[in-house]
Amino acid sequence: MAPQTAPALSPIRWHGDQYGWLELLDQTQLPGAIQWLECQSVEQVWDAIKQLRVRGAPAIGIAAAYGLVVGLQDFEDLPLSEFVVQLNQMAGYLGSSRPTAVNLFWALQRMQRVAGETPASTPTGELLVRLLAEARAIHDEDRQMCRAIGRHGAELIADGANVLTHCNAGGLATAEYGTALSVIFTAQDQGKQLHVFVDETRPLLQGARLTAWELMQRAVPCTLICDSMAAQVMREGRVQAVITGADRIAANGDSANKIGTYGLAVLARAHGIPFYIAAPSSTFDLELESGEGIPIEQRAADEITQGLGRLTAPVGVKVYNPAFDVTPAELIHSIITERGLIHPVTTDQVRRVVGS
Amino acid sequence: MAPQTAPALSPIRWHGDQYGWLELLDQTQLPGAIQWLECQSVEQVWDAIKQLRVRGAPAIGIAAAYGLVVGLQDFEDLPLSEFVVQLNQMAGYLGSSRPTAVNLFWALQRMQRVAGETPASTPTGELLVRLLAEARAIHDEDRQMCRAIGRHGAELIADGANVLTHCNAGGLATAEYGTALSVIFTAQDQGKQLHVFVDETRPLLQGARLTAWELMQRAVPCTLICDSMAAQVMREGRVQAVITGADRIAANGDSANKIGTYGLAVLARAHGIPFYIAAPSSTFDLELESGEGIPIEQRAADEITQGLGRLTAPVGVKVYNPAFDVTPAELIHSIITERGLIHPVTTDQVRRVVGS
Repeated sequence: MAPQTAPALSPIRWHGDQYGWLELLDQTQLPGAIQWLECQSVEQVWDAIKQLRVRGAPAIGIAAAYGLVVGLQDFEDLPLSEFVVQLNQMAGYLGSSRPTAVNLFWALQRMQRVAGETPASTPTGELLVRLLAEARAIHDEDRQMCRAIGRHGAELIADGANVLTHCNAGGLATAEYGTALSVIFTAQDQGKQLHVFVDETRPLLQGARLTAWELMQRAVPCTLICDSMAAQVMREGRVQAVITGADRIAANGDSANKIGTYGLAVLARAHGIPFYIAAPSSTFDLELESGEGIPIEQRAADEITQGLGRLTAPVGVKVYNPAFDVTPAELIHSIITERGLIHPVTTDQVRRVVGS
Repeated sequence: MAPQTAPALSPIRWHGDQYGWLELLDQTQLPGAIQWLECQSVEQVWDAIKQLRVRGAPAIGIAAAYGLVVGLQDFEDLPLSEFVVQLNQMAGYLGSSRPTAVNLFWALQRMQRVAGETPASTPTGELLVRLLAEARAIHDEDRQMCRAIGRHGAELIADGANVLTHCNAGGLATAEYGTALSVIFTAQDQGKQLHVFVDETRPLLQGARLTAWELMQRAVPCTLICDSMAAQVMREGRVQAVITGADRIAANGDSANKIGTYGLAVLARAHGIPFYIAAPSSTFDLELESGEGIPIEQRAADEITQGLGRLTAPVGVKVYNPAFDVTPAELIHSIITERGLIHPVTTDQVRRVVGS
């Protein structure tokens, strides 16, 4: 029997009808406090994404979709055509919050498509209803997607395995259950005994703050390590698989994910350990031939010099702080999607699984 | 002309004669405050080593040698034989502060040898004088050693090179100038333009707090990164050499150093970048055939979960916190010692350079 666990975690809630509001579990406060952030304006949603209060590529997409609804409530009295102009401007604005995650643009485009497909004679208020329905659909589909990734991925994880993960690709990063962590949760649901090594994931410690917390909430045995310890744990023979999420995947399978992922993939290869990416088809950017075209967000120096509440470097030190790196396809054993496994990771296999 | 720089840094001072005291630059307070710690008892010295107020293999050895003098001042009235019993007990006690750094034991053994070679008829007070002289000799030799390592190593560094380093193997870790950083300082003294990528070095951030500070003090251009970013910087082609110190080196060249060093060496190999260790001959433990015999100190969980002054992980999370890892000789291009380069890194070459 599966061990007793907390209910699946859902970090995004919509309250009420099309005039309702968005609530986000503020991930910057975890694990110290469980604090919900009420978003009544599109600026609050933009800020929540920028400040990583909501984070994880799928969760950002869902939040942005609801964010459009929140932002457009004030424009219901406009003629439809002017309302759509507002929608498109607002989508551009929300898209500027974080440039790397492709789900953000994917979700915004789905919302824009709803508007584009709405006949000109439709009352503006009716479009607002349809936009909320689309945001809810994005949210629901994400739940289904997470479970499907879990089912496909769990087959790769043997009973008794030690899995290493980086950053947070869990329920907090999605509608619920997550991508990389969904594989682990599903394997556990199947009765497999697992243990997870959690990279703390500097600079913002999503592994320590979020992944360790989620795993402990669901009673999955785990051990927190510093990012620099992963190689040693591998060398000790204590890791049988590495699984991470992704923020954007090119047509050839090159995958952008949290900074440090690429190094882990190199280390996994050197130790003969399979390296897996778990991500929904919405993470693929098939217009990009390879990872070279993926924009890498540079973040503020103080995330490194005083990200933990106290200055830990000399005043004025120069800092390099890329938020992501790109793992080349040849280092990835398989990409686990809701539509099945991509293996080997090649342009042909990517097209076969997520190309349509 | 070499750029204007601060005077060489010396983190250890002895004040007065054999009845004097030891002063240590408290490295846990850097870079926020320059605070000197006065040690009037052996317990204070033990604690300063344990708490990393003094750190770096050579510096620990020097501090421990002076620590014996401080501790033995109270026993000058004992007969010589009983004084030597005290000395040996105290050496065992100081040796228990940090198990990995071999310089600690090497320095303590040098002090014990002075006692062993002192004729039984010698007045106890005279032995105390000789012990201080030996501690001063260890200190002075370390200064010379650092400069010699710098001279040998600087030949490996081309003008315009970008060097990546981990932890702190600088003046703070030695009598002055350092080991890995001595190579950089010496190359700079020779007029070479260098740039250094500094791994912040979790959990205790010696790179961010100490190495970046030392480099900035001496006007060496540097950029601070998180440990997880080293692979990305290498992939961008921005690193031409990796240099670190070592805490203990086995007869075959396997080298224990700060956790994260082994992973860097694997990454350097994968990117075709030479990986160098800079360490004095006193760091070699020739009785150990390979790195497998090197004890790895495990440190407290709260260094990871709240090492930065604030809880950043769930209460009760399990943590793995090895202070060191072992880089196998085959990943090391050369070991830079005060006696010259060990290259290739094999048992024969180690014996040739530091075997006598």
